[in-house]
Amino acid sequence: MGAVDRIRDGHPWVFQVALQGIVKGVEDGAWVDIQDHKGRFLGTGFYNSKSRIVLRVLSTESHQSDADFFQKRIAAAIEHRQEVYPGRSCFRVLNAESDWMSGLIVDKYEDVLVMQISSTGMEQRKDQIAGALRAALKPRAIIERGDGASRKLDGLSESRDVLFGEAPGKIAARINELIFEVDPLGGHKTGAYLDQQLNYQAITRWAKGARVLDCFTFHGGFALHAAKAGAAHVTAIEQSSDAVQIATRNAAANSLSKQCEFVTDNVFDWFKPATAKAAQSESGLYDLVILDPPSFTRSRTEVEDALRGYKEIHLRAMRLLRPGGVLATFCCSHHVSRELFMSVITDAAMDSHRALRLLENFSQSPDHPILPAIPETEYLKGFALQVLPRA
Amino acid sequence: MGAVDRIRDGHPWVFQVALQGIVKGVEDGAWVDIQDHKGRFLGTGFYNSKSRIVLRVLSTESHQSDADFFQKRIAAAIEHRQEVYPGRSCFRVLNAESDWMSGLIVDKYEDVLVMQISSTGMEQRKDQIAGALRAALKPRAIIERGDGASRKLDGLSESRDVLFGEAPGKIAARINELIFEVDPLGGHKTGAYLDQQLNYQAITRWAKGARVLDCFTFHGGFALHAAKAGAAHVTAIEQSSDAVQIATRNAAANSLSKQCEFVTDNVFDWFKPATAKAAQSESGLYDLVILDPPSFTRSRTEVEDALRGYKEIHLRAMRLLRPGGVLATFCCSHHVSRELFMSVITDAAMDSHRALRLLENFSQSPDHPILPAIPETEYLKGFALQVLPRA
Repeated sequence: MGAVDRIRDGHPWVFQVALQGIVKGVEDGAWVDIQDHKGRFLGTGFYNSKSRIVLRVLSTESHQSDADFFQKRIAAAIEHRQEVYPGRSCFRVLNAESDWMSGLIVDKYEDVLVMQISSTGMEQRKDQIAGALRAALKPRAIIERGDGASRKLDGLSESRDVLFGEAPGKIAARINELIFEVDPLGGHKTGAYLDQQLNYQAITRWAKGARVLDCFTFHGGFALHAAKAGAAHVTAIEQSSDAVQIATRNAAANSLSKQCEFVTDNVFDWFKPATAKAAQSESGLYDLVILDPPSFTRSRTEVEDALRGYKEIHLRAMRLLRPGGVLATFCCSHHVSRELFMSVITDAAMDSHRALRLLENFSQSPDHPILPAIPETEYLKGFALQVLPRA
Repeated sequence: MGAVDRIRDGHPWVFQVALQGIVKGVEDGAWVDIQDHKGRFLGTGFYNSKSRIVLRVLSTESHQSDADFFQKRIAAAIEHRQEVYPGRSCFRVLNAESDWMSGLIVDKYEDVLVMQISSTGMEQRKDQIAGALRAALKPRAIIERGDGASRKLDGLSESRDVLFGEAPGKIAARINELIFEVDPLGGHKTGAYLDQQLNYQAITRWAKGARVLDCFTFHGGFALHAAKAGAAHVTAIEQSSDAVQIATRNAAANSLSKQCEFVTDNVFDWFKPATAKAAQSESGLYDLVILDPPSFTRSRTEVEDALRGYKEIHLRAMRLLRPGGVLATFCCSHHVSRELFMSVITDAAMDSHRALRLLENFSQSPDHPILPAIPETEYLKGFALQVLPRA
């Protein structure tokens, strides 16, 4: 599809190769009007010669990149969240392309805002954006925090900075009915996985009295929600010992240490002896298994390998579930579609001689809006499946 | 894929062409053991030489087709519904392949059961099945009701019969908080669309104070739920004048006549002048539009035509929505995947210069379980989309 059609269809990315001729006298980060080859106006956005995404369209109308523009976009993003996701103290305020703001992500953890900028145009206007956020949300601090990978693509270096207020230290962030430690300056990424907030809640319906296994628990998100909902016992696996330390503190902060056992291990390594043990007796089996792995694939070329990994963990998880138990499983790779993910799971069920009944479709929480015209805005998908003996 | 692999993977259908040699001395409707070409046991099921589906696998274990088998399957189906879908007086008790009972559907409308049989094996055992249903659910009547099309494929003629009790007449069936008239012997099909019961509830969150348009309303399912939730006004379109009469009576029975206007018209015909009128003034616009068409395609070969129809109604619906209004749209064809359905909607949005934000994914109610190993068990899909001006 041509770049012009893409813009007309509502996609904000224009790649280097699509530009006609050489753009002269335009600085990286400049706010520019975009026209087709006949000179017809297409939209306005940011130019950056150093990026693969040479133009990021922000609007199909003409705008000045002034405070008014950012204020209106931020107000619209907040209004949408108040409508579809009210009563939360921690949420994603603004999610880049999802809010027609390619290159800018803003998370709210109580009264602290964390900005992630991944475009030169946004980087140059970060004080203006911070000003608009202060006016809209009255935070006590605004942190800029961007990892190397996404910023590097736009020619920017990693950033950790206090844009407004005092360095906030560790925040006690309320996710549903639980408290999680979030360290916006010191921690890995910005902290919690806000995109799972609704799914944390969703799995609690199968948690009461259950023996729960939470794989890739990170800071204990699913594990603590299951424990809070009355799980008999939660085993939670996490490779990073730093993350396990935080998860352990989170369990203590919510008075859930007794029910939760955190294991520092690679999930694939942990699974093998566990499955062998479970094969010997029913007592090693779980009522609820949660699989929430990091993305096994960052690019299309790695999809094959990723699918092998997904199949492996599903096969093992199914063998660890009692008959009739529930598998809640997630995939956060944009490169693996919902259909492809389900086909891997179905394959694993066939190999482990189980029948599956679909109980629920999961998606990302609504503060990460999905715009069908921009497929990249949809990445998190999941299923709750009841794992049964063959009929 | 070969028939043996299909059975091993959990799919219950074996087609005529897959049978090795000629089956001799086996009567249509017989309960048979199924073996692969090496004589290994695969499962048990019903044989019917007159059907395209020559074998319907009911179990991968050996069973006698006795009362005990039916009792256990019915008990398991009811138990599942009590777990995932409690507190309903009207629901699908048993949904054929979804409950490993190919050829048998049972709906419950208050204290009346309606059986739909579409295989010779089930037809021959209908008294045994009715007996098991009586024991499990204590109905006052059991009706057999099967339309011509699905029974014809198995060589059966249309059926309308009272298997137990007195002919029940019209039933006042409680769907969520509303009463709907269901006429199991006299009406079109078995009556209400139970698969939409949860979605009827889901759309109410956008209904309060709204100007609502419900296209293909049939007996008023979505229209009355919107009205009950406080819609300012509901316009509901339905081609069948019989259905409109029932919808009108349903509105009266729920004291919602004042808010509901039923229009007997073809939706495509109705849309054209409506869109023209809406283009002239904002007052013709709706806050919530529901599209719940019948399947535009009964077979793979008709998919192209069906997609044109789906695109047309979506394009028109988007033009009838106020900026920021919600489109709740459904597709009940198994031959149109969720992805394909979304791509048609996205196309329509581009042509009508709208931006879409996905608010919700819809599926069939959980009394129509989805088994991923049997793709045919998943057919109803839908989306709630906010329709916005281009950013």
